[in-house]
Amino acid sequence: MRQSKLFTKTIKELPKDETSFNAKALIRAGFIDKVSAGVYTFLPLGLKVHNKICNIVRKEMNVIGGQEILMPALTPKEFWQVTDRWNNFDALFQLAGSDKKEYALGATHEEIITPLVKKFIFSYKELPTYIYQIQTKFRNELRAKAGLIRGREFSMKDLYSFHADEKNLDEFYELMKKVYFKIYKQCGLLNITYLTYASGGAFSKYSHEFQTLTNAGEDIIYICSNCRTAINQEIIKEQTHCPECNDKNFQKAKAVEVGNIFKLGTRFSKPFNLQYVDQNGKHKDIIMGCYGFGPSRVMATIVETHNDDKGIIWPEEVAPFKVHLIGIRNKELGIRNQIEKFYQNLQKNNIEVLYDDRDDVRPGEKFADADLIGCPYRIVVSERTLAENSVEIKKRGKEKCEMIKIDDVINYFKK
Amino acid sequence: MRQSKLFTKTIKELPKDETSFNAKALIRAGFIDKVSAGVYTFLPLGLKVHNKICNIVRKEMNVIGGQEILMPALTPKEFWQVTDRWNNFDALFQLAGSDKKEYALGATHEEIITPLVKKFIFSYKELPTYIYQIQTKFRNELRAKAGLIRGREFSMKDLYSFHADEKNLDEFYELMKKVYFKIYKQCGLLNITYLTYASGGAFSKYSHEFQTLTNAGEDIIYICSNCRTAINQEIIKEQTHCPECNDKNFQKAKAVEVGNIFKLGTRFSKPFNLQYVDQNGKHKDIIMGCYGFGPSRVMATIVETHNDDKGIIWPEEVAPFKVHLIGIRNKELGIRNQIEKFYQNLQKNNIEVLYDDRDDVRPGEKFADADLIGCPYRIVVSERTLAENSVEIKKRGKEKCEMIKIDDVINYFKK
Repeated sequence: MRQSKLFTKTIKELPKDETSFNAKALIRAGFIDKVSAGVYTFLPLGLKVHNKICNIVRKEMNVIGGQEILMPALTPKEFWQVTDRWNNFDALFQLAGSDKKEYALGATHEEIITPLVKKFIFSYKELPTYIYQIQTKFRNELRAKAGLIRGREFSMKDLYSFHADEKNLDEFYELMKKVYFKIYKQCGLLNITYLTYASGGAFSKYSHEFQTLTNAGEDIIYICSNCRTAINQEIIKEQTHCPECNDKNFQKAKAVEVGNIFKLGTRFSKPFNLQYVDQNGKHKDIIMGCYGFGPSRVMATIVETHNDDKGIIWPEEVAPFKVHLIGIRNKELGIRNQIEKFYQNLQKNNIEVLYDDRDDVRPGEKFADADLIGCPYRIVVSERTLAENSVEIKKRGKEKCEMIKIDDVINYFKK
Repeated sequence: MRQSKLFTKTIKELPKDETSFNAKALIRAGFIDKVSAGVYTFLPLGLKVHNKICNIVRKEMNVIGGQEILMPALTPKEFWQVTDRWNNFDALFQLAGSDKKEYALGATHEEIITPLVKKFIFSYKELPTYIYQIQTKFRNELRAKAGLIRGREFSMKDLYSFHADEKNLDEFYELMKKVYFKIYKQCGLLNITYLTYASGGAFSKYSHEFQTLTNAGEDIIYICSNCRTAINQEIIKEQTHCPECNDKNFQKAKAVEVGNIFKLGTRFSKPFNLQYVDQNGKHKDIIMGCYGFGPSRVMATIVETHNDDKGIIWPEEVAPFKVHLIGIRNKELGIRNQIEKFYQNLQKNNIEVLYDDRDDVRPGEKFADADLIGCPYRIVVSERTLAENSVEIKKRGKEKCEMIKIDDVINYFKK
């Protein structure tokens, strides 16, 4: 894409009430715009990153057999009354329609998916089943000052699993732990993300969170000194030993919850009477699990953990573009034509490029923009590099520049 | 995809209060589920169709230089007060947050995009600019009985254009009329969709709707007997002649509005003081246009206009799958293996297939399901067809079956 055609620009002036680093960096670089506390617009660059994160998650959910659906945001009161959560669910936005009908804005969707599955699943033959959506959620947060980390409106992948028995749920639950780490790896968060024990429900002793270390985090976790496990603040008092390795030394750290998985058991199937018929013709309760992942929050967490004083440093798989191509003195027709040819060639080879073709912007400003926006590779083409039939390639976050022959650039990215 | 893995099934029992054909057909065939009046879940098959329609629109918006963003559903009261629409906009859902902050659920987004653009566009050099989103909208409809045609929650593509002068807006507006018909063509609605004159605003005499003929429509239009133009009920009294060809004979018809375009002029740029600096350094108001298209409503309109007494007949470009492959007696290993090979080969050639591999369902039921779901091609493979190294291909909506040699099937679809 040509930067001259992008309607957004990097901006200097920030909203006064914005205190979080992720929001400040994303607003300055033109990824998001603040509409209200905890409510943001995704601008073209931001939407690209957000879609990439969503597609990583979607791909992994499809691999394990997840079926994608899309549930509504308007969820009727009567569904929440069945599970006794209309008055008890934390931070539920509630509203009334013109026919006096009351709704909650979906903050989670157990109340919608359980009666939905009841219409289609009757037999042990149809279990297990995994259904997910990537959808906008709403939470009536008292405070929303952490940028995309705690939004009043935010994106969520929520998968719900349905099983004939606990053993089958347990197996899938363990698989999902692995799948989540595969996703964090692709988001560049693997090394700083911990499987964290949290309180369970009536059905299981623990649930699990995925917590990424960052000072921007609103949570405190306790990391086992011996293994890659952590415990959250909620259960640290009763949990004196690591549930994985039994070690009893922990290190306290700030972190942000980037995912959570929970064995629901029959918490929702019982009130909705979601049952199946087993091999012997007996009616039994379906056993459920749920698996949440917030793409917009993960995007913020990447920004909080991948940056320097010049801007964002996107991991390659979620970057808005792989290459930020900068033309110097590209007003001059001879130079412009050569850069243009190079730009077309990158695109033809499926390398995503943001081409800074603006001819009224000084080189220093272009470099500053490239650092702020944070694409993994910066390529500079100028009269000087063209004299050597070369371009200058620099990895974002590194100091070193390399001169690479124009004809070798595609191979450079293929290796 | 294997039908045995699809958690939805065609269903016989419909919600009692569902009266619209589109909702009844889509629910029976397992495309959507009704959560509440005007509020639906998109099931796997329905989400596939919906995404295809969205992608047709997205592609055409990108071709004309549209930049995609994503605005929030929670839109603060103060933005609607600037334009005096908080109390005057029809069917706006309103709610309050825990900090007493009031929001409308976005029913349209002029109030969000105009202040957004004000942050980025200052000069004539940055005009024209076209920005769009595909996003969920909400309307507090008193009655919501038309299925996906009139939802309380529904999808919308809304593009907003920003221009230096009226002439530039007029040119783009004419272009968009053509682009819209390109989209309706791909959705199979071209021949029954009319450019329909509607009342304009302070800025222009007319706006335009795109109206598709169907008895399910809630609108009445008057079609010119001489040219492919219509007039809506709102303006028929004052408009005695066709604005295109001056003919004065009209034919009355029921139709559904599947899109609308509107010259906003300075209706929103004035209250938000959205201006630019022209070539002479003078400040001028930016001129705006807006262009709406409802993917979920278009999906319903396709169903209302493409069906027979057996079910839906999807146009190829929006069908959930191109081919519905039916195996007969596929319990038998010899047959099963051959069908399996054929299924894999179709997929390898990028032909989208729904493979009815269920071994506990009678052939008649499989045929009925295929008709109800409505994929463009049904392919039957049985012992009888395999004896001739063939498969039986039938187009949905046609009577005639063709026997095609297995080795010729890929070519059959390529021609």
